[in-house]
Amino acid sequence: MSEAPERPTIPPARFGERIERARAAAGRAGFDALLVGVGPDLEYLTGYRAMPLERLTMLVVPTAGPATLIAPRLELTPARGCPAARGGFVELAGWEETDDAIALVAELLARALDRSVGSIDRLAVSDRLWAMHVLRLIDRIPSARLESAGPVLGRLRSIKDADEIELLRLAAAAADRVVARIASGRLVGRTEADVAREVRERLLAEGHELAEFSIVGSGPNSASPHHEASGRVIQPGEPIVLDIGGSLGGYGSDITRMVWVTGGDPAKGPDEAFLHLFGVLRTAQARATAAVRPGIACEAIDATARSIIDAEGYGERFMHRTGHGIGLEGHEDPYLVAGNRDPLQPGMAFSVEPGIYLEGRYGARLEDIVVCGPDGPIVLNRAPLDLLIVDGV
Amino acid sequence: MSEAPERPTIPPARFGERIERARAAAGRAGFDALLVGVGPDLEYLTGYRAMPLERLTMLVVPTAGPATLIAPRLELTPARGCPAARGGFVELAGWEETDDAIALVAELLARALDRSVGSIDRLAVSDRLWAMHVLRLIDRIPSARLESAGPVLGRLRSIKDADEIELLRLAAAAADRVVARIASGRLVGRTEADVAREVRERLLAEGHELAEFSIVGSGPNSASPHHEASGRVIQPGEPIVLDIGGSLGGYGSDITRMVWVTGGDPAKGPDEAFLHLFGVLRTAQARATAAVRPGIACEAIDATARSIIDAEGYGERFMHRTGHGIGLEGHEDPYLVAGNRDPLQPGMAFSVEPGIYLEGRYGARLEDIVVCGPDGPIVLNRAPLDLLIVDGV
Repeated sequence: MSEAPERPTIPPARFGERIERARAAAGRAGFDALLVGVGPDLEYLTGYRAMPLERLTMLVVPTAGPATLIAPRLELTPARGCPAARGGFVELAGWEETDDAIALVAELLARALDRSVGSIDRLAVSDRLWAMHVLRLIDRIPSARLESAGPVLGRLRSIKDADEIELLRLAAAAADRVVARIASGRLVGRTEADVAREVRERLLAEGHELAEFSIVGSGPNSASPHHEASGRVIQPGEPIVLDIGGSLGGYGSDITRMVWVTGGDPAKGPDEAFLHLFGVLRTAQARATAAVRPGIACEAIDATARSIIDAEGYGERFMHRTGHGIGLEGHEDPYLVAGNRDPLQPGMAFSVEPGIYLEGRYGARLEDIVVCGPDGPIVLNRAPLDLLIVDGV
Repeated sequence: MSEAPERPTIPPARFGERIERARAAAGRAGFDALLVGVGPDLEYLTGYRAMPLERLTMLVVPTAGPATLIAPRLELTPARGCPAARGGFVELAGWEETDDAIALVAELLARALDRSVGSIDRLAVSDRLWAMHVLRLIDRIPSARLESAGPVLGRLRSIKDADEIELLRLAAAAADRVVARIASGRLVGRTEADVAREVRERLLAEGHELAEFSIVGSGPNSASPHHEASGRVIQPGEPIVLDIGGSLGGYGSDITRMVWVTGGDPAKGPDEAFLHLFGVLRTAQARATAAVRPGIACEAIDATARSIIDAEGYGERFMHRTGHGIGLEGHEDPYLVAGNRDPLQPGMAFSVEPGIYLEGRYGARLEDIVVCGPDGPIVLNRAPLDLLIVDGV
């Protein structure tokens, strides 16, 4: 394990600012309130990381009146300890085991908005709120139209501040080191699942609190973009997609590199066809990254990568979007996908990860995390993007 | 790490049976279809454990017509590999990055039910489906009334078969060993967070694939039922609530034991008041467990524990339900709580975990996983329920 660099913490006052910005944005969008369940939206607004369980925990932010964090009584102590509560930016309300927590939400809303429950109108709910809670909200507040809080909160969350970018940078650096260690270790003769286990252990040893995914796709499995590491034994003379990540200080890492294992046999190097495919992919990844700048449409980054891959006849073999935002969630706004005309803005952080997949044969993907800087891309991963040709023994 | 005992796998044909039972139950409840998103319901019905991400993966089970597993195209390979797909119990349908996946759900439903989308009536959605998908279903199929699939699926899942009980038993045995190791190791002078880290490592070393929670509540923190392990340093002469768990082969473990650390100083043993409190708790836990038998109402188990604690004047200090079901989810049906008149049935598995919490001072909880057997309780945890008085140095 490397020496841990100093990790920034989000100053408590910032949660107050975030709640106020969210409230203002919800008001401008015509909502009566934001209802935020357990998950990254709640963590963003309050710093509270609760277990996602069946008992309702919810931040209620009426566009008028105080914000209230509702929690089961047996979790009131940790809820009170979150930065937004300690800073006085939210009030606390506990509910007892035999209470109807959703009725409490309705009462709080009616009081804050100074209306009857029956005249509550438009409510924005967090995208990850569980259906069981959504359906009970609909039952309890039948007058309300529930809509996704995604357009309000996703937009706020997509612009990272300096502390968030620093956390993403630290997460990327940790993932870079894991990729380097895995690529320089033994691979031939091991199962994908065993390599994936080592990836997870190394991510944790490098300071990640969660090692969320570890795609190790060898040989023909490299052609399945979201392959689950299997019992397949890695052989000399084949490529491996290594797509790994997790979170560090709450913020995500996500990197993909391509390894080719020869087993030490010079005759088992990559064939011409793979080298051509990889060259096309590398150019597409580089050009898409270079196109990042404030004001360019998200879909234009996707189109940049796709046009290069299309021109070489692989268009059909690149069947996913070019990238996704990253922050408190592994996938979040902005999405670099055809149809998304939203412009990139300084502070947005996202993956740039084209891929080419020849089913039954092999595939390849390259991925960096990139921040939109004031003048162009800031690439957080530093691991070389070359095809890593290794003995693997 | 102990020798790993043989772990049962669920035979593929069972997923076909589960889908048919779910379909029949949904039909009896008057639903047109079950819509099951990523999570334990999907895993129960198909064996497919997908990452919970923003791209829709959904099992569509119309009460007439074939069941279809909808997945993003880039995840079709792992989706095709799940037991229900390999067994031919579900058809597969992929969607492209620029498709509207919810529109695909609507089309599938209309085709299977042989009606227009506009005349789809009642749909049951899985409890953990994300709000973003629920709200798009409401938009796309405005004629439908969406209801929780919980009463249908929760009931099916609550009755465990022999393989599931064996997995719960293995998970419990692993957690028992971790508790024994933690209680016999050094505790005094360590932070709660450091002990929690060791708990997680040991759960993984004992074969858990997930170490989901590790409550280490020392001294006054023992009075916060869902305390998050903190930087507090454990001192001689105080109690520790150790409430740990995760999952093994998909099935949950969850055990709570009480440790008292003396630091080797005979003067730092538990005081009379704590011993009294613990004695009451231990009796309540034992009586509630002994009351388990087919036909008894869930709330009667809760009442058994509560009456003993009430009688000693601690009623107000036991502010949570007595237990929750456990299986593919850490908390699931049946809930042992006032108001739940559902009768226990053979094969139901749940925690029995009363607690007494004196805020600012200390608290205690004891928890076992119990299966309702044909004649009475089958207790899966074997670790002694005594107060574990240890030097801790």
